[in-house]
Amino acid sequence: MDVAIVGYGFLGRNLLTSVVEKWSAIKAVDPYFRLVGVSNSTGYAFSPEGLPLHGVLDSGGLEHYSGFTLGGTSLELLDKCSPDLVVELTPTNIVDGEPGLTHIQHSLRMGSHVVTANKGPLAHAYWELNAEAQKHGVMLLYEATVAGAVPLFSLVRECLQADRITRMLGILNGTTNYILTRMHFEEIGFEAALKEAKERGLTERDPSIDIGGHDAACKAVILANAIMGKRVKLRDVKTRGIETITAEAIRLAKRSGYTIKLVATVADTVEVAPRLVPVNHPLCVHGTLNSVYLESDLAGELTLVGHGAGKQTVSAIMNDIITVLKRTSH
Amino acid sequence: MDVAIVGYGFLGRNLLTSVVEKWSAIKAVDPYFRLVGVSNSTGYAFSPEGLPLHGVLDSGGLEHYSGFTLGGTSLELLDKCSPDLVVELTPTNIVDGEPGLTHIQHSLRMGSHVVTANKGPLAHAYWELNAEAQKHGVMLLYEATVAGAVPLFSLVRECLQADRITRMLGILNGTTNYILTRMHFEEIGFEAALKEAKERGLTERDPSIDIGGHDAACKAVILANAIMGKRVKLRDVKTRGIETITAEAIRLAKRSGYTIKLVATVADTVEVAPRLVPVNHPLCVHGTLNSVYLESDLAGELTLVGHGAGKQTVSAIMNDIITVLKRTSH
Repeated sequence: MDVAIVGYGFLGRNLLTSVVEKWSAIKAVDPYFRLVGVSNSTGYAFSPEGLPLHGVLDSGGLEHYSGFTLGGTSLELLDKCSPDLVVELTPTNIVDGEPGLTHIQHSLRMGSHVVTANKGPLAHAYWELNAEAQKHGVMLLYEATVAGAVPLFSLVRECLQADRITRMLGILNGTTNYILTRMHFEEIGFEAALKEAKERGLTERDPSIDIGGHDAACKAVILANAIMGKRVKLRDVKTRGIETITAEAIRLAKRSGYTIKLVATVADTVEVAPRLVPVNHPLCVHGTLNSVYLESDLAGELTLVGHGAGKQTVSAIMNDIITVLKRTSH
Repeated sequence: MDVAIVGYGFLGRNLLTSVVEKWSAIKAVDPYFRLVGVSNSTGYAFSPEGLPLHGVLDSGGLEHYSGFTLGGTSLELLDKCSPDLVVELTPTNIVDGEPGLTHIQHSLRMGSHVVTANKGPLAHAYWELNAEAQKHGVMLLYEATVAGAVPLFSLVRECLQADRITRMLGILNGTTNYILTRMHFEEIGFEAALKEAKERGLTERDPSIDIGGHDAACKAVILANAIMGKRVKLRDVKTRGIETITAEAIRLAKRSGYTIKLVATVADTVEVAPRLVPVNHPLCVHGTLNSVYLESDLAGELTLVGHGAGKQTVSAIMNDIITVLKRTSH
């Protein structure tokens, strides 16, 4: 299988490192696996015979790789290498999902399977992209888009095949969970905790996307559509952030065995808002951890806790890639 | 597919109820699905054309079903109906795994796939049974044997395909977790909490299997073999129970933000013992809930929490059954 990575940054490098580490396992599933193209926002590297993985990794930045085409676009790369599988890892754009949305649409239309960690395109065009994938008989997998390394879509697809999920609650944003955790344990105010989160590099350039609940809302939309079969758009999500949570409010909650968390709720409606959560409830996780609590007709209640961001997300991307390889290898 | 249920009791009735509820979904996967035999410890019902599910369910006990053969054994039933799939649900026998072990061996040898919720046979003969299944080209699935409704084996198989699991910690016994939870929150002694557990019907006839850690040890053996590829027998597990945990010990732990839980550890060695667990750690769940904490090379840390026993276990059995149906339906 010919594979291209579009949006080679932090996750891309970590993915490539894991591909090298797990090379023999990958080759056991697909002896023809090779990386034919890699792009970032400034250009791309391409080789129809397969790029040398160590060469790309050791170049100290894709721009410094000897075969790098400065100024080439990701779409050019895709047209050039017609990969069987495109791994789309560009940063999330919450406004319109671009450029990821166009990359994914383009890939699906040319008959490529797509694995992505980019929640923007899925949050904006979940059903459109899935229809496109179906039309072209290819897979679109996006395990990494919600709760990073925590299996959710593959879990429901493969481990809860007979269950009907009736309700989901999630702590889906690590930055706000870090802030609320510090407020809970250190009894400091929101501004002080936000400052700490910034110093630790846990905030985006525009922190309001996390703080205002918009990142969590994107994830809730994907969960609602993908797991509960709803037809929900981002504008349907009632979203409130954590800006107005005071040290006093958390102190009061704490006194009664609760704390305040930014919770995404997917039920009859889809909402993101600060909620009281009992500190002994499995959903109540601290630091930058994410958690998802499912209610289903057979299993009852099930909670998953893990890393919502960072290099651990590679686990989800690799699992999606291997799923594509396995399902196409016969 | 012709299916037989061996050991029709509490779980069997709940399974059959779910099969009726999910009938159209099952038929969509396998149009030829039918239940040809059902046995319990006193006899069996058999019909080569398929038993009427409502008839069996509504009979008010299998013995009262009109087609019941009193005194017939499960092995006789298996020989009579040669099912494609045997669902083995007899009660766990921790001493030698019987009669489940013989039922499963017999089924595999006659070329039947096996789905089981019975941990005894797996704890006693994990590798032998898997070798037998492989030899006869059939599946042996046992999701329900450890942590009931919590997906573990299917999770690792389907959702963590690229990950290498390096360590597991589990709270795998609901009875002891209930007792320790009451001791933690009510600050009562072990005997008082055990009495409560008995009154609530949470204990087995011989409570020492739970209290002494032996039930958890069986589950740890299965995890060690199935998920970490070890070759461990029950006798290799260092097992300590919770009989000697005092109210005072839990009070001290609590004062420092900890509690005491019966934890199964699967790492270089396999152990079951009371351990201090930070109350804010995702593994720390209360009541009869079970939890499993995994460490892996890619995903880092992942915790799953859910129902370890009861009718929710049907979720795991149904998932295994659908997996067999899907993999054999082409």
